[in-house]
Amino acid sequence: MNPASGINPEIREKYEVTAFAPATVANVVCGFDVFGFAVHAPGDTVYMRKSSKPGIHILAIHGDGGRLPLEADKNTAGVAVNSFLQQTGINTGIEMEIQKGLPLGSGMGSSAASSVAALVAINALTGKNLTKVELLPFAMEAERVACGSAHADNVAPALFGGFILVRGYSPLDVVEIPFPDYLHGVLVHPDFELKTRDARNLLRQSVPLYDAVRQWGNTAGMVAGLMKGDDGLIARSMVDYVAEPVRSLLIPCYSQVKAAALAHGAIGCGISGSGPTMFAICRQDPSLVGKAMQQVFSDTGLSSSVYCSKLNPVGATVIQ
Amino acid sequence: MNPASGINPEIREKYEVTAFAPATVANVVCGFDVFGFAVHAPGDTVYMRKSSKPGIHILAIHGDGGRLPLEADKNTAGVAVNSFLQQTGINTGIEMEIQKGLPLGSGMGSSAASSVAALVAINALTGKNLTKVELLPFAMEAERVACGSAHADNVAPALFGGFILVRGYSPLDVVEIPFPDYLHGVLVHPDFELKTRDARNLLRQSVPLYDAVRQWGNTAGMVAGLMKGDDGLIARSMVDYVAEPVRSLLIPCYSQVKAAALAHGAIGCGISGSGPTMFAICRQDPSLVGKAMQQVFSDTGLSSSVYCSKLNPVGATVIQ
Repeated sequence: MNPASGINPEIREKYEVTAFAPATVANVVCGFDVFGFAVHAPGDTVYMRKSSKPGIHILAIHGDGGRLPLEADKNTAGVAVNSFLQQTGINTGIEMEIQKGLPLGSGMGSSAASSVAALVAINALTGKNLTKVELLPFAMEAERVACGSAHADNVAPALFGGFILVRGYSPLDVVEIPFPDYLHGVLVHPDFELKTRDARNLLRQSVPLYDAVRQWGNTAGMVAGLMKGDDGLIARSMVDYVAEPVRSLLIPCYSQVKAAALAHGAIGCGISGSGPTMFAICRQDPSLVGKAMQQVFSDTGLSSSVYCSKLNPVGATVIQ
Repeated sequence: MNPASGINPEIREKYEVTAFAPATVANVVCGFDVFGFAVHAPGDTVYMRKSSKPGIHILAIHGDGGRLPLEADKNTAGVAVNSFLQQTGINTGIEMEIQKGLPLGSGMGSSAASSVAALVAINALTGKNLTKVELLPFAMEAERVACGSAHADNVAPALFGGFILVRGYSPLDVVEIPFPDYLHGVLVHPDFELKTRDARNLLRQSVPLYDAVRQWGNTAGMVAGLMKGDDGLIARSMVDYVAEPVRSLLIPCYSQVKAAALAHGAIGCGISGSGPTMFAICRQDPSLVGKAMQQVFSDTGLSSSVYCSKLNPVGATVIQ
């Protein structure tokens, strides 16, 4: 999918720079807090221009139903841009509009997409041309505002694209994992909302050693499976002993949706981030898998949206 | 090093088959219970022949100081051979001698080397020609006798060679991880003994979630580093929050030995298996690293043996 297909040309012509950042799947079942990958769509778009008026001004947000704050210091895009301007010492007024393609509280990296798109825009607008590695801390700072902690497992794949391992945080160590170019992702977003904080509070703060060993066998297996192009190994590694057992309880008919995905040929299936969106990884066009997952939600009275695309190897971009 | 250099020709000529299995480093710092790799030397040799006398007879064990049991049902090599004969339904008497190149209770996979060498020997002797994958369960059964649990993190690399991920046990999932062919290992065995059971009893049975996340970031990073040939990533991933913090307390001057290895250019350093042997991974000939580690032990009055070789990509072999 061409991200430009989600761009509003009337808004765009009023701004100097337009940037897009995609939805991301964090955790990827076995890699709680360490894995994430990007898809092509949906995503968020940020339109930006310089202004003679000092400060950062979010003139409008589209597609959020009026729920996101326009105040720059409370909005992840505003926080990210402010962080960028503070650290680079650039003194300019900024005006922007945000077009949300991602539903809020969906587990698809909505806050990450907005802040990352805004960072790619401000980087181009100011001609600063920082590398994506240099931009990442600003996006993490915005995540701290949105989620209460500066996690990188959505912002890093939104920024870099591809399949990302956040190996560690002190210092930050983001590793791009090569993956087979045939991999597709499907995201199925049932029409209700979970707050990341709530989903996180469910987790036990310690893990039995026996489960922990199986989990780090799986993260190692996932990387080996992706780099070898071994679908069977990827599938066997996509087992989670930590988050899924509790978080899945918040998603109606979770195990049936997962079973439907696997029965229709998905390599693996699970919760995207902290949910409620569910995702599957597939070898081929995943639309049948997506329909099967949607049907299960539908059978229990839940409407849902389905998004299919290949994994996105490039991440956030300025729209030319 | 040629494994045949450790073979006794006078013993060998009395037997039909001679097989060798190498020392192995389990855990590899971050991969407690899931990672292991093989070196070329030292190792154990098993000489074997058919006999008209029913049963499995270990006629002699050399190099163990008389400490290992000759009774086949108490010796890992005997248990492995018995397991093989039971499962394959082959009915023959067996006589063998075992030449221990590995010190006992060293953390270098001593029991695994004997059982794996014996399995490769019996497989050739009987002409059954099972695959190494098929032999693995017999070796694991022998580990159960030796260590109290059927772990594969020594027997799998001793059998297959290379760098091994034991992703899981139900069902058994052993993954060969490609690694850069320049990698060397050095093993420094200080002259005292630790029992695996004792070292295991030190471990906490649960892991704080925060540490567990860092650990599975590291196992994923280790696989990515090996497969990319990224020494820096391998180095950053070789951090252990689970076993090293407690097991290192049993090894005198542990942190100084590790510091000496890293100061002399080792990529990473830690405890081999449950110790007391310490190992390092190096980009080049590791003899200087080994000497530096040995010197620290020596300064505290501990003699030690040093073994240097490249990582061993082939594992156990019949000596032609």
